[in-house]
Amino acid sequence: MATNGAAHPAKTLPAAKDLWHHLSPEAVARRPSPLKTAFKYAIDPRIVSLGGGLPLPAYFPFETISATAPAAPFTLYNDPELSATAPIVEVEVNRYNRNQEPGMIPLATAMQYGQSDGCKPLLEWISEHTEMVHHPPYSNWGCLMTVGNTQGWDAALRLLTSRGDTILAEEYTFSSAMEAANAQGVRPVPVKVDLEGILADKLDEQLTNWEGPKPKLLYTIPTGQNPTGGTLSPERRQAVYDVLSKHDIIIVEDEPYYFLQMDAYIPGSSATKLPSPPTAEEEPDKYNKFLSKLVTSYLSLDVDGRVLRLDSFSKVMAPGTRLGWIVAQEPFIERLTRQNEVSIQTPAGFSQAIVYSLLSKWGHNGYLDWLIEMRKEYTHRRNVCLDALDKFFVQPSAHAPTGLTSVVQWKEPSAGMFFWLKLDVRKHPLYGELTPLQIENRIYHAGIDHGILFIPGSWFRADQDPVDETVKPTNGEEVSVFFRGTFATVPQDKLIEGIRLFAEVIAKEFLS
Amino acid sequence: MATNGAAHPAKTLPAAKDLWHHLSPEAVARRPSPLKTAFKYAIDPRIVSLGGGLPLPAYFPFETISATAPAAPFTLYNDPELSATAPIVEVEVNRYNRNQEPGMIPLATAMQYGQSDGCKPLLEWISEHTEMVHHPPYSNWGCLMTVGNTQGWDAALRLLTSRGDTILAEEYTFSSAMEAANAQGVRPVPVKVDLEGILADKLDEQLTNWEGPKPKLLYTIPTGQNPTGGTLSPERRQAVYDVLSKHDIIIVEDEPYYFLQMDAYIPGSSATKLPSPPTAEEEPDKYNKFLSKLVTSYLSLDVDGRVLRLDSFSKVMAPGTRLGWIVAQEPFIERLTRQNEVSIQTPAGFSQAIVYSLLSKWGHNGYLDWLIEMRKEYTHRRNVCLDALDKFFVQPSAHAPTGLTSVVQWKEPSAGMFFWLKLDVRKHPLYGELTPLQIENRIYHAGIDHGILFIPGSWFRADQDPVDETVKPTNGEEVSVFFRGTFATVPQDKLIEGIRLFAEVIAKEFLS
Repeated sequence: MATNGAAHPAKTLPAAKDLWHHLSPEAVARRPSPLKTAFKYAIDPRIVSLGGGLPLPAYFPFETISATAPAAPFTLYNDPELSATAPIVEVEVNRYNRNQEPGMIPLATAMQYGQSDGCKPLLEWISEHTEMVHHPPYSNWGCLMTVGNTQGWDAALRLLTSRGDTILAEEYTFSSAMEAANAQGVRPVPVKVDLEGILADKLDEQLTNWEGPKPKLLYTIPTGQNPTGGTLSPERRQAVYDVLSKHDIIIVEDEPYYFLQMDAYIPGSSATKLPSPPTAEEEPDKYNKFLSKLVTSYLSLDVDGRVLRLDSFSKVMAPGTRLGWIVAQEPFIERLTRQNEVSIQTPAGFSQAIVYSLLSKWGHNGYLDWLIEMRKEYTHRRNVCLDALDKFFVQPSAHAPTGLTSVVQWKEPSAGMFFWLKLDVRKHPLYGELTPLQIENRIYHAGIDHGILFIPGSWFRADQDPVDETVKPTNGEEVSVFFRGTFATVPQDKLIEGIRLFAEVIAKEFLS
Repeated sequence: MATNGAAHPAKTLPAAKDLWHHLSPEAVARRPSPLKTAFKYAIDPRIVSLGGGLPLPAYFPFETISATAPAAPFTLYNDPELSATAPIVEVEVNRYNRNQEPGMIPLATAMQYGQSDGCKPLLEWISEHTEMVHHPPYSNWGCLMTVGNTQGWDAALRLLTSRGDTILAEEYTFSSAMEAANAQGVRPVPVKVDLEGILADKLDEQLTNWEGPKPKLLYTIPTGQNPTGGTLSPERRQAVYDVLSKHDIIIVEDEPYYFLQMDAYIPGSSATKLPSPPTAEEEPDKYNKFLSKLVTSYLSLDVDGRVLRLDSFSKVMAPGTRLGWIVAQEPFIERLTRQNEVSIQTPAGFSQAIVYSLLSKWGHNGYLDWLIEMRKEYTHRRNVCLDALDKFFVQPSAHAPTGLTSVVQWKEPSAGMFFWLKLDVRKHPLYGELTPLQIENRIYHAGIDHGILFIPGSWFRADQDPVDETVKPTNGEEVSVFFRGTFATVPQDKLIEGIRLFAEVIAKEFLS
């Protein structure tokens, strides 16, 4: 049974391992406020409480808040601006919910102090969702609201690490996450990856030969990785999990892009619109089918209870919800609740109330319908991107009569927002004269001069002060630099235009 | 000129002192993301950007959000539940604000990434407000949004302190703030207070005789202090500021209750309703008059730029806005912006958009009208409290024929939510047999048994493991314990009833 109340199908699941020894001194030192012990008296109707210092909800200057949002069947693809002709659902939240409408957290509750792990109804909804999607294989897991994965990661660092510690991260990773660690005096150590993600055998080797105190955790973005766009296969996730279990290392999986998974790429498919997904009437099993297509999460492999999963509405609703959550074993959730109490307290009541109302109106299946629509939309955008890469990098052009595939390679992204171009710098005419990093920088600036912005891969190195062979020319071995592009943010014509321009830059740099 | 754009009347003000040496290693180590350097290209219309990874605002599932709120003239006092007959203002925020309505942060902006110090229009509004209220006496101050003062304080600790450091705090203070410090390995050291607040000469003595590394900062709640309800006079604030300037200590003023300042107490005044404040037509100078009645803040004395002011909408709007802000010198704000980037990012877009729209509709003066109404409401509640204290503690009763003032004392609160009862435990029949702390605990539980919850003062001690004479009986000198009550949270009849019940408890404990 999940701690936050999700009904668990298998109540006989074993509890998580005791991993208390992983907690930082900061996390261990947190004490609950003595005021909490008085709380049971404050809510006892036989006792007059002059104890708590809460402002009266009658003084909150908000009578009602409301929102309009799309309703199923969703039509993002056909109408990216969600025109007024699309079905709309209205949600309204009032001060006290005197009519006891279901699916409402009244403002008197949502806008008040006192729920450091999150508003209970939303937390329960999220626990149910987590059970539906991940089926964590141990009994005592729970959820805690964050203000998004950036803060969730900050909280995870405070929970598990101290100044002087090291952590593991994919060789190229989300640079802000590494900055958070660096500033706290926690040093990221890169783990070797290929275009799909972490190499479990290299990781095992690295940990087996590790000198000094073991790293405290692995930070990983296994699905639609930023920047590489890679998505690790279930088999490789299991292998990585087993290695980390063997070495007793915590896993923090940062999964904002998890639901931006895509259907398989069919070359040329961007020319036609993807069909609308069937309705539940047309295909009663559609939700199970959708869920079964999702890649296995580390959480769903987590027999030990060593995974902290960072989840968020930022990419599937909006970053400005500032609503995320952590799933982890209950002893960690309890420590994180203490941490919330003395930092963010809880996400904004407006966000919790509006998002919960919308999720309640939609229902679990309606939310899956929304995610299915997002999947379709991102699949199409990814297809546009890959078709353009084929057209401008693979096909012969005036600039590159035999194409550019001898210089540039990529793996088809199957999730997320990013694509990652790998350039063999040995093919660059100035290779040997310039370092790979200098060539990367040259291409970056040539791009800008040519009206196209891609982000240099070196900016995403887990270790920003590396002693690394890839920045110096070597003889023989493959030497690569990388560039990150996104297919998520720009209109499709701009996406195609951008890829065309970058191909011109690459052709000019490498072939002239 | 304030950095966030508030027009400053005296552009010739000097800049803040260079106080960089106060920053923690963590704060110094923060580097801006290299991605930020590419931002100028990402927004250049001549460049196609495949650089940033932002979700498309067209996919945010919120067409509009709206809220209804009270409009001036406000009628909280006459109708604490803000009945439907009260004037209402409606605010609506849509996705793109294509009609360019003033006073709106469109959802496409408010709900997107990218503004780690806060949404610009709200930040400017807050800077203007800060200038109106505090006139900081140096040129390069700025503001940064937080998700409330609890997180603002956490951020201030991360900015200025490290494990092993000490900080100063009022002898009795907000226990969660001390817990935040304790967990971080930062030890609070109490500063002597009287019922009004910090004693500047004691503070000077303490710092002059300090052994070891000086404390990093003073944490203080100068207005409507929690738990004591004390409000330090302007003269004493100046004296405290001078002492801290002399010893080069940073001041963090945590001021959630600043606008819950009250008019002077007139005994017996709770029996009649307070008059409605005059309108601006009736009294054109009403806003200046209101502002001039507010107690001098440390920020307004801050010629050095050594004050971090923590401000918030939690107590004057609602905690669930999770909207607060820090005012400080620009070099500190810049470091805090880096910190926001890798932790909270920014407050929730719903909150920023709705609150900004409401503030824009109200205008600066309308917001002051709201605060004037809050002042009236809290003045009345405070009056009810003090009249009840007079009735049940001062006047003779069946339980206490000569009243209870030989045992219980208090200072009239002039701000905030709390009142603080000081009990002379030497008068307790078991004094000498029990320690003061044991007597305090006895009274706490006797209260609960009698149906009344007050919070024991010892729970608010800055140092929770004190070596302190007040917990052991001494001979001769005054020995006090304290209890905190609130007049903010409960209906008035409950407030009166609660004070009556507590007087019965005190009478029974001390006089029987």
